[in-house]
Amino acid sequence: MSDKPKFAVFGGGSWATAIVKMLCENQTEVGWYMRNTSAIDHIKKEQHNPNYLSAVEFKPEQLKLSNDINEMVEYADYLIFVIPSAFIFSALKNLTASLENKIIFSAIKGIVPETSLIVGDHFNTHLNVPFADIGVISGPCHAEEVALERLSYLTIACADEAKAQVVCDNLSCDYIKCNISDDVIGTEYAAMLKNIYAIAAGIAHGLGYGDNFQSVLMSNAIREMKRYVKKVHKMKRDINDSAYLGDLLVTGYSVFSRNRLFGNMIGKGYTVKSAQMEMNMVAEGYYATKSAYELNQAKGKKKAKTPIVNAIYAILYEGKDPKKIIAKLTDKLD
Amino acid sequence: MSDKPKFAVFGGGSWATAIVKMLCENQTEVGWYMRNTSAIDHIKKEQHNPNYLSAVEFKPEQLKLSNDINEMVEYADYLIFVIPSAFIFSALKNLTASLENKIIFSAIKGIVPETSLIVGDHFNTHLNVPFADIGVISGPCHAEEVALERLSYLTIACADEAKAQVVCDNLSCDYIKCNISDDVIGTEYAAMLKNIYAIAAGIAHGLGYGDNFQSVLMSNAIREMKRYVKKVHKMKRDINDSAYLGDLLVTGYSVFSRNRLFGNMIGKGYTVKSAQMEMNMVAEGYYATKSAYELNQAKGKKKAKTPIVNAIYAILYEGKDPKKIIAKLTDKLD
Repeated sequence: MSDKPKFAVFGGGSWATAIVKMLCENQTEVGWYMRNTSAIDHIKKEQHNPNYLSAVEFKPEQLKLSNDINEMVEYADYLIFVIPSAFIFSALKNLTASLENKIIFSAIKGIVPETSLIVGDHFNTHLNVPFADIGVISGPCHAEEVALERLSYLTIACADEAKAQVVCDNLSCDYIKCNISDDVIGTEYAAMLKNIYAIAAGIAHGLGYGDNFQSVLMSNAIREMKRYVKKVHKMKRDINDSAYLGDLLVTGYSVFSRNRLFGNMIGKGYTVKSAQMEMNMVAEGYYATKSAYELNQAKGKKKAKTPIVNAIYAILYEGKDPKKIIAKLTDKLD
Repeated sequence: MSDKPKFAVFGGGSWATAIVKMLCENQTEVGWYMRNTSAIDHIKKEQHNPNYLSAVEFKPEQLKLSNDINEMVEYADYLIFVIPSAFIFSALKNLTASLENKIIFSAIKGIVPETSLIVGDHFNTHLNVPFADIGVISGPCHAEEVALERLSYLTIACADEAKAQVVCDNLSCDYIKCNISDDVIGTEYAAMLKNIYAIAAGIAHGLGYGDNFQSVLMSNAIREMKRYVKKVHKMKRDINDSAYLGDLLVTGYSVFSRNRLFGNMIGKGYTVKSAQMEMNMVAEGYYATKSAYELNQAKGKKKAKTPIVNAIYAILYEGKDPKKIIAKLTDKLD
């Protein structure tokens, strides 16, 4: 690796676009892989992503754009994956370039549906990347506010703190502050779970529950998240740090969250299928619910108490009536 | 005290009105003291409070209305005070009736400015009510949503749990669930501090900070609250319970919070004085900021680390520039 490590971002969505923008504040050249060649052509010609955060202007000479994932893997030292979890498995199928000595950071908030693994575990198990070379970039952060250069805080987690620091240094700028953490697993699970709680918040809202209930739900959600993450990876952490509680709040209280919107439609009476068709996409939290529920159940007697995840699972995967399930849930909250 | 204890509510605002509504779900008669005689006449004639939650209809035969505080103290066994903290001192000056054997519950979210005491301590120190007869009714709860009968959770705190249970039983109904707690002091301080954090949220919003920063602010606020309350009264408590975190969130994220609105005006450039004149009232958090700050400073080396309270104090009481102070604060948050 050279003195000044090279970065590449994999993904063409809004969060990928926001991360490229941050890297451009610090690097002379940034690699950017996306599948969509017409978007690449558009960026080269019009200096902005046509589909996401289109107000963000790039200097094309600063970008090394490609739709060849192998070329981009070979180019960079630090690979930041921001492909939605539903598509990461198939994107990585095309990988023939070696990941040896590459540092992998995931900014994907979810689980790989095909393997039911958080992204870090997937890279370790299926692509043989050592854990010391795997990290996570987490919020609380809406990409839209990065586009507006509104002050935001990121958490960069890696078992090897020096690598977290490199990523931190290359994302920090006037409007981005980064904290480093060694809790890769907890940060990834928290980022996944918060999408389930955002669905719960949406369902409750759709059913007509108000702000008073929402605050009780979030207060219970953070306690449930603490119990869950502790079972998965016990270590000293303050669940009220921004990476956990902050990330939950920015999603749970956001009217822009796709997970919350998905939940809201379910609460208003859409079926799961029709909500997904209407949204023309599948919210991350939909997969996360199944994975989080099954992973917890598989622990048998050692499972965490997760009334909220269980309720959302019953609604999304067992066809139970949202109104009845949430009414039952309210008796379990305090 | 009779088998079925009598309740009286002291105060004519929205939160007092909401509490009277809950009591009316459980009691055949509820005492209601308010200073404003024309409001009393209006309620008797039109079945609703003319000034607050006017959509809530009462059965006048269920209400024992009076503007004589002593008559009402003599009438009831459980006295629930909901007079804004800025006026409680002068309201209590008229008290000649004995408080002996009366159970006092405070639903006031603030500090008595004249004595710099939380309401429970004020009743104990200045009115000789034993701590076992003092309790607190806390949220997270907007009165407006009680009016709409939207599911809300209350926390009823009293050192004597049997008394908390009586209040709990008399407030609970289809749309109200109550938890009991023995953390009177922590609950009162949390209710006070959250108003300061709501001012902070408002100032940041007024200055143009977005949702990403708001979530970081709230995540830091709950940790600051935990440190503060621990210094004031150390006991085993989960700061993420609804009475603490839930209460912070429902206020900090509410666009209706008067504290948040006050902060928002400060952030937009109003002076403290002009914001108060414009609002035609003083937000509870304004007094709370001074009291919380001074109380903490008085602890010397044993004081809690409170960057947010300190920043709001500097803005509200030292005339410092909100923009500069919040910018400095952002470096202290994580």
